[in-house]
Amino acid sequence: MRFVHDTLPQRVRLATGEAAAAVAEEVAALGARRVMVVASEREASLAASVTEGLPVVLTYDEVVMHVPVEVAGRARAAATEAAADVIVTVGGGSTTGLGKAVALTTGIPVVAVPTTYAGSEATDVWGLTEDGAKTTGADPRVLPRAVVYDATLMTGLPVDLSVASGLNALAHCVDSLWAPRADPINAALATEGARALCAGLPAVVTDPHAIDGRERTVYGAYLAAVAFASAGSGLHHKICHVLGGRYDLPHAQTHATVLPQVLALNAPNAPEADARLAGAFGAPSALAGLEELRRTVGAPRALRDHGFREDQIPGAVAAILPVVPPSNPTPVTTENLTALLRAVWEGADPA
Amino acid sequence: MRFVHDTLPQRVRLATGEAAAAVAEEVAALGARRVMVVASEREASLAASVTEGLPVVLTYDEVVMHVPVEVAGRARAAATEAAADVIVTVGGGSTTGLGKAVALTTGIPVVAVPTTYAGSEATDVWGLTEDGAKTTGADPRVLPRAVVYDATLMTGLPVDLSVASGLNALAHCVDSLWAPRADPINAALATEGARALCAGLPAVVTDPHAIDGRERTVYGAYLAAVAFASAGSGLHHKICHVLGGRYDLPHAQTHATVLPQVLALNAPNAPEADARLAGAFGAPSALAGLEELRRTVGAPRALRDHGFREDQIPGAVAAILPVVPPSNPTPVTTENLTALLRAVWEGADPA
Repeated sequence: MRFVHDTLPQRVRLATGEAAAAVAEEVAALGARRVMVVASEREASLAASVTEGLPVVLTYDEVVMHVPVEVAGRARAAATEAAADVIVTVGGGSTTGLGKAVALTTGIPVVAVPTTYAGSEATDVWGLTEDGAKTTGADPRVLPRAVVYDATLMTGLPVDLSVASGLNALAHCVDSLWAPRADPINAALATEGARALCAGLPAVVTDPHAIDGRERTVYGAYLAAVAFASAGSGLHHKICHVLGGRYDLPHAQTHATVLPQVLALNAPNAPEADARLAGAFGAPSALAGLEELRRTVGAPRALRDHGFREDQIPGAVAAILPVVPPSNPTPVTTENLTALLRAVWEGADPA
Repeated sequence: MRFVHDTLPQRVRLATGEAAAAVAEEVAALGARRVMVVASEREASLAASVTEGLPVVLTYDEVVMHVPVEVAGRARAAATEAAADVIVTVGGGSTTGLGKAVALTTGIPVVAVPTTYAGSEATDVWGLTEDGAKTTGADPRVLPRAVVYDATLMTGLPVDLSVASGLNALAHCVDSLWAPRADPINAALATEGARALCAGLPAVVTDPHAIDGRERTVYGAYLAAVAFASAGSGLHHKICHVLGGRYDLPHAQTHATVLPQVLALNAPNAPEADARLAGAFGAPSALAGLEELRRTVGAPRALRDHGFREDQIPGAVAAILPVVPPSNPTPVTTENLTALLRAVWEGADPA
């Protein structure tokens, strides 16, 4: 046992049905008097209800995926001109990301009210895109001071999107167990996150409006983000990053089809991770638990159904091999990586 | 699910055999150039080896239990006079406590190198005594910026002290599951702590010089402190506080005999806590797991063997009832509390 673990300071609240009151308390705790609200047009009315009664000096709705630098620049100028002293973001990853971009240069604290399971609110990582290229970094200023989760804001998230987003969060939990900075603390948080997602996602599929499933899922997604930010990217995320970047494959389906194959590759050489996940899933093994969950929520099985071609496998193998984390428990070779991607392509039973 | 959880910022390192290098890195990371070392006389040579090569401007060894205000005052004056810009504490709870007392008024950051399982290093709680009365408070300035655990510094801690201190840490884990600010996050950390302590303590008893058991135990004690600081005092600690304060009973024996009875009282109405602990202990129930651990490490059974008298039970019940946390899963009455204290007194089988 040997590790260096950094715990980031943040207050997180689960306040179902009471987001407005919780946000008001957090704004007051920061001593803020000039609120900048960041929310896309689509979530304008949600944002208005969550920030009702606050001293709002600016409502900013130019939210664009991946935070283009021009968009960030305009938002920063608007924040400065309005002399905002707190940013309240209401929305998904792009909305939180814009709030973080403003915080990065202005130092204005952020209170995040997420409406998806993206998890950006739990990390100190920012991202900006310029001419199609994404730059990311970590800075304590962008970590939201407080996060307010209100499950009632999420009941409108469609089931398919909820499942896709929830499985991405689960991939964060699983992959963090063998990621470069994996340690027992982020493993414990990842395990707890997997436990919550495994209980929550089937409940969301059964009834997307039921609060209990939504609460468990968003709580699990929060811990997934905390664990992943702490542990870093493991083999699963390296593979998905290459597949998504080179072949423009859909994010959610890529994660859903790659995860079981990576777990099957690594579990035999990661007995502690296997045992942790088996416990979280309440299953005899991690893989059995993941497959049961995937069946229950109707996860995609074969990536060839979503645009991945068999003849792309060798190129993908060549691109992935150099970025395999040295921490990966099973040594990765051309042979086993080719077999893994073939299994992803055809949706083979990972067991 | 409804909670407000504050995560405190701290870097924690487990660096067995490498405390000196780890401390040097943390001092450098703080940009510090004038080190105040706090360590009792008994640990002077240990402290010297851990801080070898650092720019030490002051070595302070007036360490007294419960940090009397006069002692804190002298240490603060010495720190200011020496213009120290970092405090490195090497020792147990009293040593860490003195470092925190200096940080409280001077703002000088603390790097803690614990040599026991006390856990003070993981919290923002300070304590000072004046005329025999203890004042405590919480302040972000006293939270050590970094904690360096080195299991080789602990192999000299006698087995009986290790067991007593480890069972206290386990009591933090168990009690935090139903404490006033219990939430799923501190429950996950408490569970992980219990898992580590349950694996580590028997290994320490078998071979106090074996590193693996020491590492697991100190790691578990760290999480116990994090969870307890976050969740607050539950019924167990309220009972122990009253028994210790009124009847001057020994700390460790009181914790060891009270814990199983409180668990027996609460488990039937705390199924999730029961399941979490059972999983951590690898036992069919929390109580079965705790009793097996207590047998293995030779924990004290009856508090009458350590000074508690049967005729003190009614007075203790009267003193405890008003301080029972409203969060306790089983409603506490004169009847069941009397039965509980009688079981503690005679060492009855909690099952």
